[in-house]
Formats: sequence, C-alpha cells, structure tokens
Amino acid sequence: MTDPVRTDPVRVGLLGCGNVGSALVRLVDEHADLISARAGVGIEIARVVVRDLGRERDGKLPADRFTTDADAVVRDPEIDVVVEVMGGVEPARTLMIDALRAGKPVVTANKELIARHGPELFAVAADAGVDLLFEASVAGGIPLMRPLRESLAGDRIRRVMGIVNGTTNYILTRMAEAGSTFADALAEAQELGYAEADPTADVEGHDAAAKAAIIATIAFGARVSPDDVYTEGITGVTADDIASAETLGYVVKLLAVAEAHEGAIAVRVHPAMVPMRHPLASVRDSFNAVFIEGEAVGELMLYGRGAGGGPTASAVLGDLVDAVKNLVSGAKGATIGELVDRPMTPIAETESPFYLLMEVADQPGVLSAIAGEFGRHGVSIKSMEQRGIRTDARLVFITHRAREADVRATLAALRDVDQVRRVGSVLRVVGEDD
Amino acid sequence: MTDPVRTDPVRVGLLGCGNVGSALVRLVDEHADLISARAGVGIEIARVVVRDLGRERDGKLPADRFTTDADAVVRDPEIDVVVEVMGGVEPARTLMIDALRAGKPVVTANKELIARHGPELFAVAADAGVDLLFEASVAGGIPLMRPLRESLAGDRIRRVMGIVNGTTNYILTRMAEAGSTFADALAEAQELGYAEADPTADVEGHDAAAKAAIIATIAFGARVSPDDVYTEGITGVTADDIASAETLGYVVKLLAVAEAHEGAIAVRVHPAMVPMRHPLASVRDSFNAVFIEGEAVGELMLYGRGAGGGPTASAVLGDLVDAVKNLVSGAKGATIGELVDRPMTPIAETESPFYLLMEVADQPGVLSAIAGEFGRHGVSIKSMEQRGIRTDARLVFITHRAREADVRATLAALRDVDQVRRVGSVLRVVGEDD
Repeated sequence: MTDPVRTDPVRVGLLGCGNVGSALVRLVDEHADLISARAGVGIEIARVVVRDLGRERDGKLPADRFTTDADAVVRDPEIDVVVEVMGGVEPARTLMIDALRAGKPVVTANKELIARHGPELFAVAADAGVDLLFEASVAGGIPLMRPLRESLAGDRIRRVMGIVNGTTNYILTRMAEAGSTFADALAEAQELGYAEADPTADVEGHDAAAKAAIIATIAFGARVSPDDVYTEGITGVTADDIASAETLGYVVKLLAVAEAHEGAIAVRVHPAMVPMRHPLASVRDSFNAVFIEGEAVGELMLYGRGAGGGPTASAVLGDLVDAVKNLVSGAKGATIGELVDRPMTPIAETESPFYLLMEVADQPGVLSAIAGEFGRHGVSIKSMEQRGIRTDARLVFITHRAREADVRATLAALRDVDQVRRVGSVLRVVGEDD
Repeated sequence: MTDPVRTDPVRVGLLGCGNVGSALVRLVDEHADLISARAGVGIEIARVVVRDLGRERDGKLPADRFTTDADAVVRDPEIDVVVEVMGGVEPARTLMIDALRAGKPVVTANKELIARHGPELFAVAADAGVDLLFEASVAGGIPLMRPLRESLAGDRIRRVMGIVNGTTNYILTRMAEAGSTFADALAEAQELGYAEADPTADVEGHDAAAKAAIIATIAFGARVSPDDVYTEGITGVTADDIASAETLGYVVKLLAVAEAHEGAIAVRVHPAMVPMRHPLASVRDSFNAVFIEGEAVGELMLYGRGAGGGPTASAVLGDLVDAVKNLVSGAKGATIGELVDRPMTPIAETESPFYLLMEVADQPGVLSAIAGEFGRHGVSIKSMEQRGIRTDARLVFITHRAREADVRATLAALRDVDQVRRVGSVLRVVGEDD
C-alpha cells in the first residue's frame, strides 16, 4: 500500500488525571515502544486537564502540559484524540460532543455518562465519522464491549449476567467465607478502599444498574437507560441467607442480568442464588465477571478486575491504540449501529426459580396451608427444608421456574396465613438449568 | 463522511464445509439482518469449496454455489473475502497465500496452519495490506486473539495459562468428579464425540502445544513454533494423583503456559496442580479458559466453548464482520507487527512448586534420608503428608518454588536411596501465590 505514513506522534488531550489518568500517563511512558509498534505511530500525552495545577504530579510529564482549561484542549487543532477520565455527566458530556464534532476520536471510562447519554453520544460520533470507544466504562479492565461489539458481531446474544460491582462482591465473599456480618464486611471494604465512605451507589445496586444499562444497550442494540433497570441492592441479604445458600449448594451474588426474549428486553440488578458449579459462583473478592449466552457461541465468561487505576487504564489504552490505528489508517470510526426501542419486560413478568425463607408456627397442618397458597398461585415447589427453632420452624423453599408476579401474590397471601410468623428473604435463583 | 457507500453484498468464498463451515452458512443465513447492520453491508456466501459435490447439504444455499475447485474460488475476481475452514497445512497454506496476494482478506480457523506457518502468513498479509484473522484457531468461540491483540494492546503480558483442550479437560473432570479411570473417561469422551478414535493429539498434549505456540506468538510478539513447546500429556495422570490433589486442595488440569521473563520466553504444556480457589480450577467438562496476567490489567480470564461448530463459527463470523467492515471502509488490514526472535527458556530452567508422590519403606530414618536429598539439591519442602500402606508408606510432598533441573536431580538421587521403592507422579503446581 502506498498510504503516506504518519511519523509524528499522535497527540492526546487527557481530560482528568486522577487514579486512572495518572495510571494511563505511566503506561504510555513505560510501554512507549510496545504502543507505537501496535498503533503504528507513537502516542504522546500532549495536554492534561486537571482541576488543581498546584497538586504534585509524579513527574512523567513536564509541568507545562497541565492545564485547567478543558475547552481549549478539546478545541486545540494540535490535539488529535481526546481521552476522558474525569467522570460525571457535565462538563464531560459537552466536552466529548465538542471533541467528536471537531473530528477527534474520543475514548472514555465514564460509566455514568455512557449509561445516561450513550445514544446521544453514539449518534454524534456516527455523524462525525469518528471513534467513540468506552471499553473502560463497564467492568474496568475486562474486555467486554469489544467482544460484544466485534467478536460476537454475527451471533445473537440471549442473556448477559454479570458480577459488575467489586465492592458488593467483596462484601458477599467475606460474609460467605469469613462469616462476617454485612456491616463488618462493609467496614472492611471501606478500610481496603474498595468501598466509598458513602457506599449507597454500590450496596443499593445503582452502580451495577448503570453498567447493566450499557451492557443491554450494546448486547441488544437497543436504547436502555438506568431507569429501565429494576434494581435491588444487597443490604437485605442476611448471614442466614448466605448460610442456607451454602447448605443448598448456592452462593449469593449481586447480579446484573440483561435478557432478550421474543423481541422484548428485561434488565435487572438484584442479589441472586447462583449454583456453586456455575462459573459465576467462583468469582470471589472484588473481582468482576460477565457471563454471556449467545445463540451460536454458547456460554462465555469474561473475568477480571472491574476497577482500579491499572486495569481501567489498560482498557483505556487498548481503546486508544485502536482509535489511533483507525486515525492514521483513515478508517471510518467504529460506530454503534442505529439503536432501536424495544419493549421492556417489567420485573413482575420475568420468570425464575425462587428461594424463599419464612418462619412459621411449628403446628400440624402448617405445611399444607402454605403449600396450598403456592398451588393456588401456580407456583410449584421444587424443594423444601425445615429446621426447628423452639416452638417455631424455619422453612426454606426453592420453587420451580415461576413468574415473579405469581410469587409476590403467593407471599402476600402467605402473610395472611395465621401460622406464618414472618416471610424473610426472597431471592431469585439464577444460572440453574431449567 | 462522503465515502461512496457499497450496497451490494460482500461475496465470500468458503473453503471447507464440514462442522464449522456448515454452521457458518446457517449463521449467515439466519442472522443476515444483524450481520449487515454490524458490517455495514450484507454478506453472501457466494462459493463453497467441498471435497464431494454429491454429499447432501442442508439446503440453505443453492447447489450451484458448491464447487470442488478451490484455486478457482481463490482467484475469482468476484470473490471479496476468503474463509478457510478446511483444516490441515496444504493446500490451505497455498490457497491462503494466493488469496492474500490477490488482495482478499482471509479469515481462518486453522490452528495447525497458524501454529506452523503463522509468521510467513502474517508477513504475506502485511505486504498485501489486507486482514488475516484467526480468532477461531485457538479456543474456539472464546474471544482471545482480539483481546490479546487489541484490548491489551498497551499492556505488557507476563503470563498466559490456558485450559485449551476440551477433550482432556473432560477426561480430567470425570476422573475427579466421577472417580473414573483414565481409560473409562477417555471411552466416555469418545462416545460423546469429544475425543477422536485416535486420541493421541489430545491426550499427549500436541493439540494444546499448537495452541500454546499461537498464544505465545501473539501475546509476546515473538516467533514461537510448536517445536519450541515442552509437551507432556495426561496419560500418566493417575486416579491417585487426582485423589491426593483433592485432599491437598488442588485439581489436576492440563495447562498450556506461556511466560515472558527478562526478555526470554518459556512455553510448555503439562498436567498441573491448580489450587481449588484459582479461577482455572472451576473450568469443568469440555470447557476451555485462558487466564492472562498483564502488568496493568492484572488477572483476566476468558472462558467458554473451545470447540464445536457453533462456537467456532461464531468466532469466524466475528472476524468476517471485522474484515468486511475494514474492506468496505478502506481501512488498512489489522496486521500483526514484526515478530521478533526471543530466547526460549528450556524447561529445565523454569521454576515452580512441585507435587511429588513416592512410595518408601516404612523404616526409621527414611524421611531424614529423603529430606537430605531435597536439601542437597536446593529444593525446599513446603508440606509433606504420609500415609501407611502395609509395611510401606506413601509420601506426598509439595515443594516451594524450585528449578525444574534441581527437582529432576533430586528425583534421580532419590531413586538410588534404598528405602525409596518408587518415585511416582511428578506434577508442577501452577497458579499459587509464590
């Protein structure tokens, strides 16, 4: 081929220099040879936008590369590519749109922005004919967007189930393996820097819901917003649930589940009982993993670090090399195809087996009364385990696959049964052969 | 952008129509809409090269698309892209070279060919400036080449460890979980179609060695041939080993290991003890998985179906969509960078902890004699377990990290110790924190 070969390095404008940004600066410095071999040209972090110019940097870059003026960097004709790792919706959204419209490829790690404004940004990128890459926005260093968009480009994805929040997976692992309470495990996670001082976004499932929306959007080519995601966190999961999960051969995991069925899409985040033999069950500590079921490919799982400067920067750099390769070869940007609107299945209409724990008076006839309610609502019991606690008994049920609405109706009815003292945990069972 | 948009479908010449080829024809037919949305243009299987025109086909394609003349298809100016799923080295190699030189991108699932002639073929593709994609050649449907080449493009890979042969993983799983003998598990695998009538290539590790060579080539950008891979199969693994592995908290897996250390590369295939908590330990039945350790990304694992028509065709189709996208957008081919020659570390110089099983006379002083030999050769014992069997005893040792040559010297010396009746299995321990 006789393309004119670009030899001067591609100049990157880096928006944000926290954990991920500074890890990226280090990687680009340390792996310069590897990167230019792979990208076909050198990559230079030409400008870095920070909030505070006075803060100490690690010295990989001369001080005059730093600036607080993000607008100027995005508009600078000397900047070829923009990397956004500042986080938050604004001003990141406006900056990215300006960069794309100026013909600059953008690489981002911004989960919130892609989850909330992905469709708008994808359209801007497509119009401009440049790359918008966001591998790092979901599951940190795990290659996920690229496999979904490229490796499985000819396959039809049926379901994606992910452990996409490291904080909650750490907490659940400690509860299961060290017998910690939720509060102790959370405190430990905070000490290790896995959980924020305000852990709400993690433990209530909001972080996972944003990731679930991005996964569903890309896996099904449909517009899915975090508001479409039914979300339950792990604050209600008890030591009891985890212990009886183990007895029954399950582990409790916070899962993000995105399913396509007969043209409709269901996306949800909730704690779930996962059979011990399922590959997701062995994902421990703060690791993430995403399990994909494709029509042709069958079962696939991608496992790794979902957060942290190094893993996230590695994903950003993979995207950056890709964007640079396309830029120098004059390839058209890897745009997301037209997103469609598809009906969203409400949680009440979804189906799964259920785990139910309840406390009842240990009296003759109680089981028959309870079983009767299950039957009346069309919920079939797969297994039951009874343990006495003084004059009361604790019953643990696993149902066959049942409609969520029917299970809820059963539970409402059971609360009115005299001998039922308390309906405790209700957990969906996921990943079991139906 | 104002590129002229190609609207007529891209015409594919398919070489081979066995398991994978016919699954590909089905996928292209069933997912036509999805594929043209992703590729930006329709894909048509225009010609199919088969050995026997008389054989019944499933009717997705008109009979006149089939031919026995591979040369004509490769040279046909109407053919835009070549997909090679015929297997074997020749005539596949010559056909692919002809196709690449004619400017046609090539997608292949041919492990043997890429392992033996990859560097030659990569160079031909680079010269011609067209894509040569081979995701399906290693680990079937698991996205592996793409993550190694693209997602981790800016990261430095330290080690890759894979369960890349489904047959042997099935056999080892049955031995561990059902207590089968090697012979019974092999017979079962043959019945299920997981193992060939002649299972040599699988059970002796040759299939895994070819895959290890490809993985090392791509992970380290170096020329590695299957002849560079130290290879041990699983025929020597006994029910005893598997039982004592379990007692000690390990499972036995056939691993392909590729490591880079101080500029040198070590590549080997052998059965190994994997700690039960390691993600590779939970890869059961005929599933494959590849565990990657990158400098920035940390630990990554990719899990899925390593063989079978559907998974392999899914990987081929992912590559095909990519090649077609590049073709219509006029992008330069995604060539493998210049491969380098790097020193290969001989197996004797590699290090790992070892599991050693031996039978000794149950006499006073025996342990001291044995421990003396370990010490003399600089091999340090981490744990020892003794079980009596009549007048003899069986000793199981786990060593600390030791040089393979030192362990071999220890074993040679132990064979000369009077009280040592038999040195049984010797297995490397892999995946343990050092």
